[in-house]
Amino acid sequence: MDTWLTSLQTDNPQEGFELAITLARKGVGYTQTSPEVRSELRGGYAHDAATLTSASHVIAVHFQTVAAANNYWK
Amino acid sequence: MDTWLTSLQTDNPQEGFELAITLARKGVGYTQTSPEVRSELRGGYAHDAATLTSASHVIAVHFQTVAAANNYWK
Amino acid sequence: MDTWLTSLQTDNPQEGFELAITLARKGVGYTQTSPEVRSELRGGYAHDAATLTSASHVIAVHFQTVAAANNYWK
Amino acid sequence: MDTWLTSLQTDNPQEGFELAITLARKGVGYTQTSPEVRSELRGGYAHDAATLTSASHVIAVHFQTVAAANNYWK
Amino acid sequence: MDTWLTSLQTDNPQEGFELAITLARKGVGYTQTSPEVRSELRGGYAHDAATLTSASHVIAVHFQTVAAANNYWK
Amino acid sequence: MDTWLTSLQTDNPQEGFELAITLARKGVGYTQTSPEVRSELRGGYAHDAATLTSASHVIAVHFQTVAAANNYWK
Repeated sequence: MDTWLTSLQTDNPQEGFELAITLARKGVGYTQTSPEVRSELRGGYAHDAATLTSASHVIAVHFQTVAAANNYWK
Repeated sequence: MDTWLTSLQTDNPQEGFELAITLARKGVGYTQTSPEVRSELRGGYAHDAATLTSASHVIAVHFQTVAAANNYWK
Repeated sequence: MDTWLTSLQTDNPQEGFELAITLARKGVGYTQTSPEVRSELRGGYAHDAATLTSASHVIAVHFQTVAAANNYWK
Repeated sequence: MDTWLTSLQTDNPQEGFELAITLARKGVGYTQTSPEVRSELRGGYAHDAATLTSASHVIAVHFQTVAAANNYWK
Repeated sequence: MDTWLTSLQTDNPQEGFELAITLARKGVGYTQTSPEVRSELRGGYAHDAATLTSASHVIAVHFQTVAAANNYWK
Repeated sequence: MDTWLTSLQTDNPQEGFELAITLARKGVGYTQTSPEVRSELRGGYAHDAATLTSASHVIAVHFQTVAAANNYWK
Protein backbone atom coordinates (compact mmCIF):
# COMPACT_ATOMS: atom_id res chain seq x y z
CA MET A 1 0.00 0.00 0.00
CA ASP A 2 1.15 3.51 -0.77
CA THR A 3 2.23 5.93 1.89
CA TRP A 4 -0.81 7.79 3.16
CA LEU A 5 0.15 8.71 6.74
CA THR A 6 3.44 10.35 7.52
CA SER A 7 2.54 12.43 10.56
CA LEU A 8 -0.18 13.05 13.13
CA GLN A 9 0.75 16.73 13.37
CA THR A 10 -1.66 19.18 11.80
CA ASP A 11 -1.73 22.95 11.59
CA ASN A 12 -4.96 23.39 13.50
CA PRO A 13 -7.84 21.47 15.16
CA GLN A 14 -10.01 21.41 12.07
CA GLU A 15 -7.29 19.74 10.00
CA GLY A 16 -6.87 17.37 12.92
CA PHE A 17 -10.55 16.51 12.77
CA GLU A 18 -10.25 15.86 9.04
CA LEU A 19 -7.26 13.61 9.66
CA ALA A 20 -9.41 11.70 12.18
CA ILE A 21 -11.99 11.17 9.44
CA THR A 22 -9.27 9.85 7.12
CA LEU A 23 -8.09 7.43 9.80
CA ALA A 24 -11.66 6.19 10.39
CA ARG A 25 -12.12 5.56 6.67
CA LYS A 26 -8.75 3.84 6.34
CA GLY A 27 -9.83 1.45 9.10
CA VAL A 28 -12.69 0.44 6.83
CA GLY A 29 -10.52 0.48 3.71
CA TYR A 30 -8.00 -2.03 5.03
CA THR A 31 -10.85 -4.47 5.76
CA GLN A 32 -12.98 -3.96 2.65
CA THR A 33 -10.39 -3.26 -0.02
CA SER A 34 -12.81 -2.79 -2.93
CA PRO A 35 -13.64 0.90 -3.51
CA GLU A 36 -16.77 -0.14 -5.41
CA VAL A 37 -18.16 -2.13 -2.49
CA ARG A 38 -17.30 0.66 -0.04
CA SER A 39 -19.02 3.22 -2.24
CA GLU A 40 -22.12 1.05 -2.42
CA LEU A 41 -22.15 0.54 1.36
CA ARG A 42 -21.72 4.26 1.99
CA GLY A 43 -24.85 4.99 0.00
CA GLY A 44 -26.74 2.79 2.42
CA TYR A 45 -25.32 3.73 5.80
CA ALA A 46 -25.42 7.45 5.08
CA HIS A 47 -29.18 7.11 5.44
CA ASP A 48 -29.12 5.08 8.65
CA ALA A 49 -28.91 7.06 11.90
CA ALA A 50 -27.33 4.27 13.95
CA THR A 51 -24.49 3.63 11.49
CA LEU A 52 -23.88 7.36 11.03
CA THR A 53 -23.60 7.72 14.80
CA SER A 54 -21.16 4.79 14.87
CA ALA A 55 -19.08 6.44 12.17
CA SER A 56 -19.03 9.64 14.21
CA HIS A 57 -17.91 7.57 17.22
CA VAL A 58 -14.89 6.19 15.39
CA ILE A 59 -13.93 9.70 14.31
CA ALA A 60 -14.17 10.80 17.96
CA VAL A 61 -11.73 8.10 19.06
CA HIS A 62 -9.22 9.03 16.37
CA PHE A 63 -9.67 12.73 17.15
CA GLN A 64 -8.58 11.98 20.74
CA THR A 65 -5.37 10.52 19.37
CA VAL A 66 -4.71 13.35 16.93
CA ALA A 67 -5.52 16.01 19.52
CA ALA A 68 -3.11 14.44 22.01
CA ALA A 69 -0.44 14.22 19.30
CA ASN A 70 -0.78 17.96 18.76
CA ASN A 71 -0.88 18.79 22.46
CA TYR A 72 -4.44 19.96 21.83
CA TRP A 73 -3.14 22.79 19.59
CA LYS A 74 -2.44 24.91 22.66
CA MET B 1 -15.43 23.41 3.79
CA ASP B 2 -15.53 26.60 5.82
CA THR B 3 -13.60 27.06 9.00
CA TRP B 4 -15.68 25.82 11.90
CA LEU B 5 -13.06 24.74 14.47
CA THR B 6 -10.20 27.03 15.42
CA SER B 7 -9.59 26.00 19.03
CA LEU B 8 -10.49 23.41 21.64
CA GLN B 9 -10.21 25.99 24.43
CA THR B 10 -13.47 27.13 26.01
CA ASP B 11 -14.27 29.49 28.84
CA ASN B 12 -15.91 26.91 31.07
CA PRO B 13 -17.01 23.24 31.21
CA GLN B 14 -20.49 23.89 29.87
CA GLU B 15 -19.14 25.54 26.73
CA GLY B 16 -16.78 22.60 26.48
CA PHE B 17 -19.72 20.23 26.59
CA GLU B 18 -21.44 22.20 23.86
CA LEU B 19 -18.28 22.04 21.75
CA ALA B 20 -18.30 18.26 22.23
CA ILE B 21 -21.84 18.21 20.84
CA THR B 22 -20.70 20.22 17.84
CA LEU B 23 -17.85 17.79 17.22
CA ALA B 24 -20.21 14.80 17.43
CA ARG B 25 -22.57 16.39 14.90
CA LYS B 26 -19.71 17.32 12.57
CA GLY B 27 -18.67 13.67 12.56
CA VAL B 28 -22.07 12.90 11.14
CA GLY B 29 -22.07 15.93 8.83
CA TYR B 30 -18.85 14.96 7.06
CA THR B 31 -20.35 11.54 6.25
CA GLN B 32 -23.90 12.56 5.35
CA THR B 33 -23.41 15.94 3.73
CA SER B 34 -27.07 16.68 2.97
CA PRO B 35 -28.68 18.81 5.70
CA GLU B 36 -32.11 17.65 4.53
CA VAL B 37 -31.28 13.98 5.00
CA ARG B 38 -29.69 14.67 8.39
CA SER B 39 -32.75 16.60 9.53
CA GLU B 40 -34.99 13.75 8.46
CA LEU B 41 -32.84 11.19 10.27
CA ARG B 42 -32.75 13.29 13.43
CA GLY B 43 -36.54 13.25 13.57
CA GLY B 44 -36.36 9.48 13.72
CA TYR B 45 -33.48 8.81 16.09
CA ALA B 46 -34.59 11.43 18.59
CA HIS B 47 -37.40 9.00 19.43
CA ASP B 48 -35.20 5.92 19.69
CA ALA B 49 -33.58 5.28 23.07
CA ALA B 50 -30.68 3.21 21.71
CA THR B 51 -29.62 5.79 19.14
CA LEU B 52 -30.01 8.65 21.63
CA THR B 53 -27.74 6.77 24.01
CA SER B 54 -25.23 6.25 21.21
CA ALA B 55 -25.31 9.96 20.42
CA SER B 56 -24.68 10.70 24.10
CA HIS B 57 -21.75 8.27 23.96
CA VAL B 58 -20.06 10.12 21.11
CA ILE B 59 -20.49 13.40 22.98
CA ALA B 60 -18.84 11.77 26.02
CA VAL B 61 -15.78 10.77 23.98
CA HIS B 62 -15.38 14.26 22.55
CA PHE B 63 -15.94 15.79 25.98
CA GLN B 64 -12.92 13.79 27.23
CA THR B 65 -10.82 15.42 24.54
CA VAL B 66 -12.12 18.93 25.15
CA ALA B 67 -11.78 18.58 28.93
CA ALA B 68 -8.17 17.42 28.59
CA ALA B 69 -7.47 20.32 26.20
CA ASN B 70 -8.68 22.71 28.89
CA ASN B 71 -6.83 20.96 31.71
CA TYR B 72 -10.27 20.17 33.10
CA TRP B 73 -10.92 23.89 33.70
CA LYS B 74 -9.01 23.70 36.97
CA MET C 1 -29.82 27.15 27.92
CA ASP C 2 -29.33 27.81 31.61
CA THR C 3 -26.05 27.24 33.34
CA TRP C 4 -25.92 23.64 34.57
CA LEU C 5 -22.19 22.86 34.59
CA THR C 6 -19.72 25.19 36.25
CA SER C 7 -17.04 22.75 37.40
CA LEU C 8 -15.88 19.15 37.10
CA GLN C 9 -14.54 19.20 40.66
CA THR C 10 -16.50 17.23 43.24
CA ASP C 11 -15.97 16.56 46.93
CA ASN C 12 -15.64 12.80 46.59
CA PRO C 13 -15.85 9.92 44.08
CA GLN C 14 -19.53 9.26 44.63
CA GLU C 15 -20.46 12.83 43.78
CA GLY C 16 -18.18 12.46 40.77
CA PHE C 17 -20.12 9.39 39.69
CA GLU C 18 -23.37 11.30 40.06
CA LEU C 19 -21.94 14.14 37.96
CA ALA C 20 -21.06 11.54 35.30
CA ILE C 21 -24.71 10.47 35.29
CA THR C 22 -25.79 14.08 34.83
CA LEU C 23 -23.40 14.48 31.90
CA ALA C 24 -24.71 11.30 30.27
CA ARG C 25 -28.29 12.51 30.59
CA LYS C 26 -27.43 15.97 29.29
CA GLY C 27 -25.96 14.34 26.20
CA VAL C 28 -29.41 12.90 25.56
CA GLY C 29 -31.18 16.10 26.58
CA TYR C 30 -29.40 18.27 24.04
CA THR C 31 -30.48 15.90 21.26
CA GLN C 32 -34.05 15.16 22.37
CA THR C 33 -35.12 18.44 23.95
CA SER C 34 -38.63 17.38 24.94
CA PRO C 35 -38.79 16.19 28.57
CA GLU C 36 -42.03 14.36 27.81
CA VAL C 37 -40.49 12.31 25.03
CA ARG C 38 -37.42 11.56 27.14
CA SER C 39 -39.59 10.43 30.05
CA GLU C 40 -41.54 8.15 27.75
CA LEU C 41 -38.36 6.67 26.28
CA ARG C 42 -36.85 6.10 29.72
CA GLY C 43 -39.87 4.00 30.69
CA GLY C 44 -39.00 1.73 27.79
CA TYR C 45 -35.24 1.41 27.96
CA ALA C 46 -35.19 0.93 31.72
CA HIS C 47 -36.60 -2.52 30.99
CA ASP C 48 -34.16 -3.37 28.23
CA ALA C 49 -30.85 -4.90 29.32
CA ALA C 50 -28.90 -3.82 26.23
CA THR C 51 -29.92 -0.17 26.48
CA LEU C 52 -29.33 -0.12 30.24
CA THR C 53 -25.84 -1.47 29.63
CA SER C 54 -25.26 1.22 26.99
CA ALA C 55 -26.39 3.88 29.45
CA SER C 56 -23.95 2.49 32.01
CA HIS C 57 -21.22 2.64 29.35
CA VAL C 58 -21.76 6.36 28.72
CA ILE C 59 -21.60 7.00 32.46
CA ALA C 60 -18.30 5.10 32.56
CA VAL C 61 -16.78 7.31 29.88
CA HIS C 62 -17.83 10.48 31.67
CA PHE C 63 -16.63 9.07 34.99
CA GLN C 64 -13.16 8.72 33.45
CA THR C 65 -13.21 12.42 32.65
CA VAL C 66 -14.53 13.49 36.05
CA ALA C 67 -12.08 11.22 37.88
CA ALA C 68 -9.14 12.64 35.94
CA ALA C 69 -10.39 16.17 36.64
CA ASN C 70 -10.27 15.38 40.34
CA ASN C 71 -6.91 13.64 40.18
CA TYR C 72 -8.80 10.48 41.19
CA TRP C 73 -9.62 12.04 44.60
CA LYS C 74 -6.22 10.99 45.89
CA MET D 1 -28.77 7.39 48.22
CA ASP D 2 -26.42 5.91 50.80
CA THR D 3 -22.69 6.27 50.57
CA TRP D 4 -21.31 3.44 48.47
CA LEU D 5 -18.12 4.93 46.98
CA THR D 6 -15.57 6.66 49.16
CA SER D 7 -12.35 5.93 47.29
CA LEU D 8 -10.96 4.53 44.05
CA GLN D 9 -7.90 3.16 45.84
CA THR D 10 -7.73 -0.60 46.28
CA ASP D 11 -5.14 -2.91 47.76
CA ASN D 12 -4.43 -4.82 44.56
CA PRO D 13 -5.50 -5.17 40.91
CA GLN D 14 -8.09 -7.85 41.59
CA GLU D 15 -9.92 -5.68 44.09
CA GLY D 16 -9.67 -2.90 41.52
CA PHE D 17 -11.34 -5.16 38.97
CA GLU D 18 -14.10 -5.93 41.42
CA LEU D 19 -14.58 -2.21 42.08
CA ALA D 20 -14.91 -1.73 38.31
CA ILE D 21 -17.71 -4.32 38.33
CA THR D 22 -19.45 -2.44 41.14
CA LEU D 23 -19.19 0.82 39.18
CA ALA D 24 -20.64 -0.83 36.06
CA ARG D 25 -23.59 -2.19 38.04
CA LYS D 26 -24.17 1.14 39.78
CA GLY D 27 -24.44 2.77 36.35
CA VAL D 28 -27.35 0.43 35.68
CA GLY D 29 -28.76 0.83 39.18
CA TYR D 30 -29.09 4.60 38.98
CA THR D 31 -31.11 4.24 35.78
CA GLN D 32 -33.28 1.24 36.69
CA THR D 33 -33.82 1.72 40.41
CA SER D 34 -35.95 -1.37 41.01
CA PRO D 35 -33.85 -4.32 42.24
CA GLU D 36 -36.62 -6.69 41.15
CA VAL D 37 -36.56 -5.48 37.56
CA ARG D 38 -32.75 -5.57 37.47
CA SER D 39 -32.72 -9.12 38.80
CA GLU D 40 -35.22 -10.17 36.17
CA LEU D 41 -33.20 -8.51 33.39
CA ARG D 42 -29.97 -10.11 34.58
CA GLY D 43 -31.52 -13.55 34.22
CA GLY D 44 -32.05 -12.74 30.56
CA TYR D 45 -28.85 -11.06 29.53
CA ALA D 46 -26.63 -13.52 31.33
CA HIS D 47 -27.61 -15.93 28.56
CA ASP D 48 -27.01 -13.51 25.70
CA ALA D 49 -23.46 -13.32 24.36
CA ALA D 50 -23.78 -9.81 22.96
CA THR D 51 -25.08 -8.29 26.18
CA LEU D 52 -22.51 -10.17 28.26
CA THR D 53 -19.78 -8.78 26.04
CA SER D 54 -21.23 -5.28 26.45
CA ALA D 55 -21.22 -5.72 30.22
CA SER D 56 -17.57 -6.79 30.05
CA HIS D 57 -16.87 -3.67 27.97
CA VAL D 58 -18.28 -1.34 30.62
CA ILE D 59 -16.17 -3.09 33.25
CA ALA D 60 -13.11 -2.54 31.05
CA VAL D 61 -13.74 1.20 30.85
CA HIS D 62 -14.13 1.48 34.61
CA PHE D 63 -11.06 -0.69 35.15
CA GLN D 64 -9.03 1.85 33.15
CA THR D 65 -10.15 4.53 35.59
CA VAL D 66 -9.50 2.46 38.70
CA ALA D 67 -6.11 1.29 37.42
CA ALA D 68 -5.04 4.88 36.70
CA ALA D 69 -6.26 5.92 40.15
CA ASN D 70 -3.96 3.31 41.67
CA ASN D 71 -1.03 4.13 39.41
CA TYR D 72 -1.48 0.63 38.00
CA TRP D 73 -0.52 -0.90 41.39
CA LYS D 74 3.15 -0.48 40.52
CA MET E 1 -13.29 -16.05 44.40
CA ASP E 2 -9.71 -17.20 44.18
CA THR E 3 -6.85 -14.87 43.46
CA TRP E 4 -6.43 -14.58 39.70
CA LEU E 5 -4.91 -11.12 39.24
CA THR E 6 -1.92 -10.02 41.25
CA SER E 7 -0.20 -7.64 38.84
CA LEU E 8 -0.65 -5.83 35.53
CA GLN E 9 3.08 -6.09 34.78
CA THR E 10 4.07 -8.53 32.07
CA ASP E 11 7.40 -9.44 30.51
CA ASN E 12 6.51 -8.32 27.00
CA PRO E 13 3.67 -6.93 24.85
CA GLN E 14 2.39 -10.33 23.78
CA GLU E 15 1.92 -11.47 27.37
CA GLY E 16 0.23 -8.14 27.97
CA PHE E 17 -2.17 -8.87 25.13
CA GLU E 18 -2.92 -12.26 26.61
CA LEU E 19 -3.57 -10.65 30.00
CA ALA E 20 -6.01 -8.30 28.26
CA ILE E 21 -7.85 -11.35 26.92
CA THR E 22 -8.01 -12.80 30.43
CA LEU E 23 -9.44 -9.53 31.76
CA ALA E 24 -12.08 -9.45 29.02
CA ARG E 25 -13.14 -13.01 29.80
CA LYS E 26 -13.21 -12.34 33.55
CA GLY E 27 -15.61 -9.47 32.88
CA VAL E 28 -17.96 -12.02 31.38
CA GLY E 29 -17.21 -14.61 34.05
CA TYR E 30 -18.22 -12.39 36.95
CA THR E 31 -21.61 -11.78 35.29
CA GLN E 32 -22.35 -15.28 34.01
CA THR E 33 -20.81 -17.49 36.67
CA SER E 34 -21.69 -20.84 35.11
CA PRO E 35 -18.81 -22.25 33.03
CA GLU E 36 -21.27 -24.50 31.22
CA VAL E 37 -23.43 -21.60 30.06
CA ARG E 38 -20.35 -19.60 29.04
CA SER E 39 -18.99 -22.51 27.04
CA GLU E 40 -22.32 -22.90 25.27
CA LEU E 41 -22.48 -19.18 24.47
CA ARG E 42 -18.93 -19.15 23.15
CA GLY E 43 -19.81 -21.84 20.64
CA GLY E 44 -22.43 -19.47 19.27
CA TYR E 45 -20.70 -16.14 19.24
CA ALA E 46 -17.46 -17.51 17.82
CA HIS E 47 -19.41 -17.83 14.57
CA ASP E 48 -20.92 -14.35 14.65
CA ALA E 49 -18.80 -11.56 13.19
CA ALA E 50 -20.44 -8.77 15.18
CA THR E 51 -19.93 -10.44 18.55
CA LEU E 52 -16.37 -11.46 17.67
CA THR E 53 -15.63 -7.85 16.81
CA SER E 54 -17.17 -6.74 20.12
CA ALA E 55 -14.98 -9.25 21.96
CA SER E 56 -11.93 -7.86 20.17
CA HIS E 57 -13.04 -4.36 21.22
CA VAL E 58 -13.10 -5.27 24.91
CA ILE E 59 -9.63 -6.78 24.58
CA ALA E 60 -8.45 -3.51 22.98
CA VAL E 61 -9.70 -1.47 25.93
CA HIS E 62 -7.97 -3.74 28.44
CA PHE E 63 -4.80 -3.75 26.33
CA GLN E 64 -4.70 0.05 26.66
CA THR E 65 -4.69 -0.37 30.42
CA VAL E 66 -2.09 -3.12 30.47
CA ALA E 67 0.16 -1.28 28.01
CA ALA E 68 0.03 1.88 30.13
CA ALA E 69 0.77 -0.17 33.24
CA ASN E 70 3.93 -1.43 31.54
CA ASN E 71 4.93 1.96 30.16
CA TYR E 72 4.36 0.43 26.74
CA TRP E 73 7.28 -1.99 27.28
CA LYS E 74 9.71 0.72 26.23
CA MET F 1 1.09 -19.71 20.31
CA ASP F 2 4.08 -18.38 18.41
CA THR F 3 5.60 -15.02 19.12
CA TRP F 4 3.80 -12.42 17.06
CA LEU F 5 4.22 -9.23 19.13
CA THR F 6 7.58 -8.18 20.43
CA SER F 7 7.24 -4.40 20.48
CA LEU F 8 4.74 -1.57 20.08
CA GLN F 9 7.40 0.69 18.55
CA THR F 10 7.10 1.36 14.83
CA ASP F 11 9.10 3.48 12.43
CA ASN F 12 6.24 5.78 11.47
CA PRO F 13 2.50 6.39 11.99
CA GLN F 14 1.42 4.30 9.02
CA GLU F 15 3.24 1.24 10.32
CA GLY F 16 1.64 2.00 13.67
CA PHE F 17 -1.77 1.96 12.03
CA GLU F 18 -0.99 -1.37 10.42
CA LEU F 19 0.09 -2.74 13.79
CA ALA F 20 -3.25 -1.59 15.20
CA ILE F 21 -4.99 -3.61 12.48
CA THR F 22 -2.93 -6.66 13.43
CA LEU F 23 -3.89 -6.23 17.08
CA ALA F 24 -7.59 -5.94 16.18
CA ARG F 25 -7.41 -9.14 14.12
CA LYS F 26 -5.50 -10.99 16.84
CA GLY F 27 -8.30 -10.12 19.25
CA VAL F 28 -10.63 -12.02 16.95
CA GLY F 29 -8.11 -14.78 16.31
CA TYR F 30 -7.69 -15.69 19.96
CA THR F 31 -11.47 -16.13 20.27
CA GLN F 32 -12.19 -17.89 16.98
CA THR F 33 -9.10 -19.97 16.44
CA SER F 34 -10.11 -21.55 13.14
CA PRO F 35 -8.69 -19.63 10.16
CA GLU F 36 -11.34 -21.22 7.93
CA VAL F 37 -14.22 -19.91 10.04
CA ARG F 38 -12.61 -16.46 10.27
CA SER F 39 -12.13 -16.34 6.51
CA GLU F 40 -15.76 -17.28 5.97
CA LEU F 41 -16.97 -14.65 8.45
CA ARG F 42 -14.80 -11.97 6.86
CA GLY F 43 -16.48 -12.56 3.53
CA GLY F 44 -19.77 -11.70 5.19
CA TYR F 45 -18.92 -8.74 7.38
CA ALA F 46 -16.86 -7.02 4.70
CA HIS F 47 -20.19 -6.31 3.01
CA ASP F 48 -21.97 -5.05 6.14
CA ALA F 49 -21.52 -1.37 6.95
CA ALA F 50 -22.20 -1.73 10.68
CA THR F 51 -19.64 -4.48 11.20
CA LEU F 52 -17.05 -2.70 9.05
CA THR F 53 -17.53 0.40 11.19
CA SER F 54 -17.12 -1.71 14.34
CA ALA F 55 -13.91 -3.17 12.94
CA SER F 56 -12.66 0.35 12.25
CA HIS F 57 -13.56 1.26 15.84
CA VAL F 58 -11.40 -1.51 17.29
CA ILE F 59 -8.51 -0.39 15.10
CA ALA F 60 -8.99 3.15 16.44
CA VAL F 61 -8.70 1.99 20.04
CA HIS F 62 -5.52 0.04 19.32
CA PHE F 63 -4.11 2.95 17.33
CA GLN F 64 -4.47 5.11 20.46
CA THR F 65 -2.30 2.63 22.32
CA VAL F 66 0.31 2.32 19.59
CA ALA F 67 0.45 6.09 19.06
CA ALA F 68 0.99 6.67 22.78
CA ALA F 69 3.68 3.98 22.81
CA ASN F 70 5.51 5.89 20.09
CA ASN F 71 5.00 9.29 21.69
CA TYR F 72 2.88 10.10 18.65
CA TRP F 73 5.97 9.85 16.39
CA LYS F 74 6.91 13.41 17.29
